Amino acid sequence: MSNNKIVFAQLNPISGDVEYNKNKAIEYIKRAKAEKAGLIIFPELFLIGYPIGDILTRYPSLLKQTQKALDEVKKHSDNISILIGYPQINKDKIGKPYYNSVSLIKDGEIKKTVRKTLLANYSEHNDYRYFEPYFKEQNRIFELNGVKYGIIICEDGWNDFDFFCKNLYNIDPVQEIADKIDCLICLASSCTRAKKEQLKHNMMKFVSKKYKIKYIYVNQVGANDELIYDGLSRIYDENGEIIARAKAFEEDFFVVDDFKGKINPLPTGLEKTLDSQKEFSLDYEADLDRTYQSIILSIKEYFSKNGIKRAVLGLSGGLDSTICATLLADAIGNKNVIGVSMPSKITSSESKNDAKELAQNLGINFLEIPIKQECDVISNKFSDVFKKIDLPRYQASYTNDNIQARLRATILWGISNEFESTIPIATSDKSELYMGYATINGDMSGGFAPITDVVKTKLFALARWMNENRLIKNSIPISIIKKPPGAELAINPETGKPLLAEEALMPYEFLDEIIWRLENFSQSIDNMMEEKFLYETKHQIDEKTKLMWLNKFFKRLNRAIYKWYIAPIGPIVDSRSINKQEFKQPVVSNIDYK
Amino acid sequence: MSNNKIVFAQLNPISGDVEYNKNKAIEYIKRAKAEKAGLIIFPELFLIGYPIGDILTRYPSLLKQTQKALDEVKKHSDNISILIGYPQINKDKIGKPYYNSVSLIKDGEIKKTVRKTLLANYSEHNDYRYFEPYFKEQNRIFELNGVKYGIIICEDGWNDFDFFCKNLYNIDPVQEIADKIDCLICLASSCTRAKKEQLKHNMMKFVSKKYKIKYIYVNQVGANDELIYDGLSRIYDENGEIIARAKAFEEDFFVVDDFKGKINPLPTGLEKTLDSQKEFSLDYEADLDRTYQSIILSIKEYFSKNGIKRAVLGLSGGLDSTICATLLADAIGNKNVIGVSMPSKITSSESKNDAKELAQNLGINFLEIPIKQECDVISNKFSDVFKKIDLPRYQASYTNDNIQARLRATILWGISNEFESTIPIATSDKSELYMGYATINGDMSGGFAPITDVVKTKLFALARWMNENRLIKNSIPISIIKKPPGAELAINPETGKPLLAEEALMPYEFLDEIIWRLENFSQSIDNMMEEKFLYETKHQIDEKTKLMWLNKFFKRLNRAIYKWYIAPIGPIVDSRSINKQEFKQPVVSNIDYK
Repeated sequence: MSNNKIVFAQLNPISGDVEYNKNKAIEYIKRAKAEKAGLIIFPELFLIGYPIGDILTRYPSLLKQTQKALDEVKKHSDNISILIGYPQINKDKIGKPYYNSVSLIKDGEIKKTVRKTLLANYSEHNDYRYFEPYFKEQNRIFELNGVKYGIIICEDGWNDFDFFCKNLYNIDPVQEIADKIDCLICLASSCTRAKKEQLKHNMMKFVSKKYKIKYIYVNQVGANDELIYDGLSRIYDENGEIIARAKAFEEDFFVVDDFKGKINPLPTGLEKTLDSQKEFSLDYEADLDRTYQSIILSIKEYFSKNGIKRAVLGLSGGLDSTICATLLADAIGNKNVIGVSMPSKITSSESKNDAKELAQNLGINFLEIPIKQECDVISNKFSDVFKKIDLPRYQASYTNDNIQARLRATILWGISNEFESTIPIATSDKSELYMGYATINGDMSGGFAPITDVVKTKLFALARWMNENRLIKNSIPISIIKKPPGAELAINPETGKPLLAEEALMPYEFLDEIIWRLENFSQSIDNMMEEKFLYETKHQIDEKTKLMWLNKFFKRLNRAIYKWYIAPIGPIVDSRSINKQEFKQPVVSNIDYK
Repeated sequence: MSNNKIVFAQLNPISGDVEYNKNKAIEYIKRAKAEKAGLIIFPELFLIGYPIGDILTRYPSLLKQTQKALDEVKKHSDNISILIGYPQINKDKIGKPYYNSVSLIKDGEIKKTVRKTLLANYSEHNDYRYFEPYFKEQNRIFELNGVKYGIIICEDGWNDFDFFCKNLYNIDPVQEIADKIDCLICLASSCTRAKKEQLKHNMMKFVSKKYKIKYIYVNQVGANDELIYDGLSRIYDENGEIIARAKAFEEDFFVVDDFKGKINPLPTGLEKTLDSQKEFSLDYEADLDRTYQSIILSIKEYFSKNGIKRAVLGLSGGLDSTICATLLADAIGNKNVIGVSMPSKITSSESKNDAKELAQNLGINFLEIPIKQECDVISNKFSDVFKKIDLPRYQASYTNDNIQARLRATILWGISNEFESTIPIATSDKSELYMGYATINGDMSGGFAPITDVVKTKLFALARWMNENRLIKNSIPISIIKKPPGAELAINPETGKPLLAEEALMPYEFLDEIIWRLENFSQSIDNMMEEKFLYETKHQIDEKTKLMWLNKFFKRLNRAIYKWYIAPIGPIVDSRSINKQEFKQPVVSNIDYK
C-alpha cells in the first residue's frame, strides 16, 4: 500500500497548557487516522506551546507533564507516523537545560528524535536563553512509502548561503541532507510580520528549486501575547511552485494527498509586500488585509485564552479609538464592546457626534459620560495643592490636559473593576508612542493595546480599507477619517481651536517616514538629512525645518522610552516595533543620534 | 625600569554615551600616567557602556563614534598600556554583527585585540542578541615588565569544569592559557545580586589557587535601568587570597603597586550571603547593607543620568512608602523629596500621624491633601455610570477601594506634570507584585519603583536596619514597623477595621517563603507540600490551609503577570526577580503549577 496522504496539523496551542495541547494533538491524530493518512505533522514545540518565555526554567514540573503527554501521543501512533515538537531535557553535564526537539513516533515508539541546530536569538526570539543548540551529527532522514524525508526545525531552514547575503550561522542543516532526500519537512512556530511572508516564500521557493526537492512547511497558528502566527502551512514542488497551502489565521486540518492539495489564498495584497520595501509610501494596500487579520486574531486570542469577555474603551471621535472600537467589534462581537464618550469642555460637538454615530454603526454599547464637572473638581484641587509647593513650575504645563485623559482612564478601569470579565483598552498608536504623545495612566493605560504597532498614516488607510471590506460597509463616519488628528486636551492659543497633533508634533507623513527609515534601515539623523522624504516631494520645506523635525523626533523618542517600558501588551504587526519583547533600549542611556 | 603599578579604572559609564565614557577614560589614563602606572584596565565594553540593549543594532552610527573614541584613547597611550573594552564590527559574512572586544593599546597602537568567547544569555543577559561568540584561536597573552598576563572578558571566566557541577559551555578560556601566564586579567560588567559576591569570590579564589596564578578582576560600577554594578574590583594572589580590593558602589581610581594595595571592605554581612541559601530565614542581616547600598545607587543613577531632580510620593504611614521615602531622602537628598499624605475616609489617624512624623524625621517636604471629598465625587459619578450598564457585576468589587489609589496617583502625576524635573514614585513591593495586590494607575504607577524586588519580610528587616545604621538614627517611627501591613483601601466587615494585607492574602512569612522556594529552587506546589515551611515550625496549620495558600498564591500570580508587564523600572537586588528584563512569562499562558 502506498499512502502519501499527509496531514498538516496547523494548530493553535496555549503556552504552558500541556494538557490542552496534547488533547488537541490526539484529536487531530484520530482524525488523520480516520482519513487513512500516513503522516501527521505538528508545529514546532507544539506540546508546550510557543512562545514559552521562562516557563520551563521556572516550572520544571511542566517537563514531566510533557513527557506524560508524549507517552499518551505514542499510544495513538498505530498505523500513522507522527512528527511532533516538544522541549527535551539536555542530560549532558554541559549546556543549557533543554533541547528544542521533534520526534518521529510510530507504532507506540519514538523512531527518531531530531534536535534544533540553529537557534534564533534576535528580534522577538530568545532561544539561547533555555535551549542548547545541537551541533553534533544527527540523522534527520526517514523513509515513508518510498519517499525520503528530512526533518528541520524552523530557524534550521533560514541559513541558505546562496539566498542570503549575510548569514547568522556557519552551517546549513538543509545543505547537509538535501541530496539525500526527496522532501524537506520544516516544523515551525514563525510569527507574521510585515514583509515576512514574501521573504519566507522566496527563500523556500529558492531552496526547493536549488536542490530539486519538495518542501513541506507546517506552521503554528494563533496568537500569544504580542506574537501572531498566521499558519499558511504549505508545500512546494521540486520547481519551487506552491502545490498546496493551508488557511491563513485559522486552525486547519490540512490534507495533502499524493503531494496535491488545496491552495488557500494569502491575505489580499500580501504578494506585493516585498516590493513596497524600497521607498516609503502611503500606499499601504499590500499589507492592510494582513494587518487587519493579524490584529483581529491577536485580540480574539488574548481575550479567549485569558478568559476575558468584554472590552471597554473611550470613544473620542478620533481615529485611534475609532479603529480600536471597530477591530474589537469584529474580534469579540459588537455586543461585548462598550464605547464610552467622555466629553470635557475642550471636546467639540463634532467629536461627540462622530463617537455616537460610530457606536450606532458598529452596534456596540454606548455611554455618554461628560467629565467636565469632575475635571473642574480635580483642577481646583490641584490649584490648592500647587499653591503649597514652592518649586519651579514648567512654563508650558500639561497638567490640566492630562487630568482629562487620566479621569477617563479612571472611569474605564472603574467599569472594569465593577463588571465581570471586562478590560479597558489602550488606544495609543505607534506614531504617538514614538513621540511620547500619550498620557501615562491615561490613553496609554489599559489591559490590551490593539494598535500599538501601527503608525498613524497606516491607520488612515486601514480605516478606509475597513469601510470597504467589512461585512457592513462604511461604519466609520467619513468625518472621522477626514478630520486632522488631535488629542482634544488643550486649545491652541494661535488658532483658538483644539490643538492638533500635527501642530504639536510635525506632519504625520514626515513623522511616519522617520519611523520607517529608523526601523527598516537604522538611519541616523545625518543619513536622513541626505535623503529625500516623500513629504519633501510634495511640500517645500527648508533644511532647517527638516533638521528641526528630525531633532525633535529623536529628542522626544529619547524621553518616551520610559513610557514604552510600561506600555500594555499589544500585537506586533509591523516589520520592526518598539514592543519591549522585541526592541530593547535602556531608559538610562544617552545617545547621539547624529 | 620595572613598573608593576596597575590602575583599576573602576568607572561608571553611561549606556550609549560614547563621548562621556571616552572623556572619563582619558581623564583616568592621564591620572594613571601621572602616577607612573604601567597598565590601566577598564571594565568590559566601557566605551559604549553596559547594558547596551539594542542600541548598537538600531543606531549603528554609534560604532563610528566608538572607533573615533578609540583613536583618541590611542593618542594618550605613550608610556602606558591600556586595556579597554568596546564593541567591534564582525566583518565576516557570517554571524551576529558585533564582537565584544578588548584591546591592548600602547604607544599609539592597538597591540592586541581579544574577543569574548563565552556569551551570557540567561537571566538579565542577552548577549547572543548582538554579539558573535569568538571560538577561533586567539592570543590572549601579553608580557609587561616580566609578568605574563592573560586577558578574558567577564563570562569567559565563569566556566571552570572543576568548580561548577554543571557548565554552560564546553570550553574554558581560562584553562587554555592558565599554564602560560602569571596573572589573569578579567574585564567585567557584572551586576550585583543577592548571594552573588560570595559565589564570585569562591570561584575566583578556586581558580587562582588551582592554577597558582594571580587573578585581577576589574568591574564596572554604577547602575543603568534595573541593573546595579557594585564595583569591588580586586586581585587574588597565587594562593587565592585577596591582596587588594577597590571600593563597593563607588567609582575608584584604584592603584595596585607591585601587586599590593588597599583591601576595601565588603558591605557588612555580605561574606555570609552564601550560607543563608539553604533554608528560608527571616534573618536578612547578611544582605541588608548590600540591599540598601544597591537601591541607593540605583536611585541616584536613575535620577542623575536621566537629569531628574526630585521625587514625589504618597506617604500612607505604611511600611512600603516609608521605606521608599527614606531611601529617596538618602539617595537624592531630603530636600528633593516631596511626601504627600492623602488620607481618605478609611485612613486611620495613626497612619496620618505616622506619615507626618516620618516626614519630619527625614526632613523631607510634606503635604497633607485629604481626598475624601474627591473620592466621593468620583464614587457618585461611578454610581450614576454603573446604573446605565446592564452587565453582571462582581460580587466583591474593588471599585471604590481603587478610586482612592488612582486619585492619589493622579495627584502625584499632576505634581510631576506641573513642577520641573519631578517624578512620582511607585511604592509596590515584591510580595505584593507576586500577588497582584497593587493597583494599576494607583500605587503601581510611577516613574521609578525602588522596592519592586524586595519582599515584605525583608522590608521590615531593612526598616530596623536603617533605623540603626543611617546617620540619623530611628527616623522611622517604630509604630510603622510594628503595625501589621494593610492598604487601608477597604474595611474588613468582620473586624470593622481597615482590612489587613495578611487577611486578604496570607501571612507574609509564609508568602515570602513561597517566593523564595519558587525563585531559588523552582519548586512546584507538590514540592512545597512535601517540605516544611518556617511558618509551620511556629504555627500549627493543617495541610488543607497550606494547600489553600499555595493554590491562592499561584492563582493570583497567574493573574498578576499582566501587571508585571506594565510595572515601572526598579532595581533588581534579589538573586531572582520578576523584573521583565529578567523573568519572562507570557501573559497568555495557562500553567498547571502542581
